Amino acid sequence: MSQAIDFYFDFSSPYGYLGAQRIDAIAEKHSCEVNWRPYLLGAVFKQLGTSPLVSQPVKGPYSRHDLMRSSRLYGITFKIPDPFPVNSLAACRAYYWLVDDDPALAKKLAQTLYRGYFIDNRNLGEAEVVVETAVALGIDKEAVTAGLHDADVKARLRSEVEGALEKGVFGAPFFIYGDEQFWGCDRMDHLDKWLETGGW
Amino acid sequence: MSQAIDFYFDFSSPYGYLGAQRIDAIAEKHSCEVNWRPYLLGAVFKQLGTSPLVSQPVKGPYSRHDLMRSSRLYGITFKIPDPFPVNSLAACRAYYWLVDDDPALAKKLAQTLYRGYFIDNRNLGEAEVVVETAVALGIDKEAVTAGLHDADVKARLRSEVEGALEKGVFGAPFFIYGDEQFWGCDRMDHLDKWLETGGW
Repeated sequence: MSQAIDFYFDFSSPYGYLGAQRIDAIAEKHSCEVNWRPYLLGAVFKQLGTSPLVSQPVKGPYSRHDLMRSSRLYGITFKIPDPFPVNSLAACRAYYWLVDDDPALAKKLAQTLYRGYFIDNRNLGEAEVVVETAVALGIDKEAVTAGLHDADVKARLRSEVEGALEKGVFGAPFFIYGDEQFWGCDRMDHLDKWLETGGW
Repeated sequence: MSQAIDFYFDFSSPYGYLGAQRIDAIAEKHSCEVNWRPYLLGAVFKQLGTSPLVSQPVKGPYSRHDLMRSSRLYGITFKIPDPFPVNSLAACRAYYWLVDDDPALAKKLAQTLYRGYFIDNRNLGEAEVVVETAVALGIDKEAVTAGLHDADVKARLRSEVEGALEKGVFGAPFFIYGDEQFWGCDRMDHLDKWLETGGW
């Protein structure tokens, strides 16, 4: 398989975080690349008139319980951060500022931001936390700080979000492989099987 | 395991149908009983201000595709009926009219109604179809017809729906085993593992 998986997520999505801990291993099994594509779920909520699952009545408490149960099942360290959810604009911009120049480091930054938030309660909604995380990975502080305010970076993120909506992406994690879309952690086994079999 | 699984579903839910084709085999593996508990998802939609997944923009087309793909994966004959969705009030009433006297026949009726709708496009939203389906299973026509209008049966269904909402049931299929809730076809593997391990 040479085609890449597009992996859409929001840095503030706990299911996105769980998906992020598992997707690379699945792709690797099938010698497949993964394009990490952070975007803003808020744009989906606005488009569809919906709200974050964990904030909804009835479904919210269930999903918090399910997140803990799922993370234990998969052996993924996880807790629901406080504050939660947060705006992941700065995290997204840092990622897209970096990704063309150094995709490997950009993915590492994404993973570090995700783990910082969902393991160590480091609030990636704050630009300073995003910058500190980047600096800890050896990225220049001035450069990344400037990147967060760069007009091209802002435009790139807007374009990514619009592109995601145009493709029908509406959740996190959300995977596209060829023409096939897989929504949610609970479709990663279907994606895995799709990669293995070539589809059914 | 001697505890029973409560299996909540709406006769008009395609994911409920897929779940219904798989739950008994999972329970049997663990020598566990299943209480089939049809209810009315409309009450949930009203409570939460939501709507059927397949009727929603963006998520609707995805879920139709996912239903076909999931049914092929599990080898379950399935098509989306027309009309769809329908009101499953009569089907629920027929079930609860029968279940105390003959639970095995009630489950058979439920399964036959489900398969009639999602395989043979027999509109279980129509009371006559529900009655015909019951008659084909050897049930007395006058008796079941009267049952659909019986005040006790109506009260029983209302009580089932209210009981489901009180327990936090909000989807189909939805499973409760002890204190654990599992929402959706995509949590049946977790339920299976829970039954196998006693929980984690």
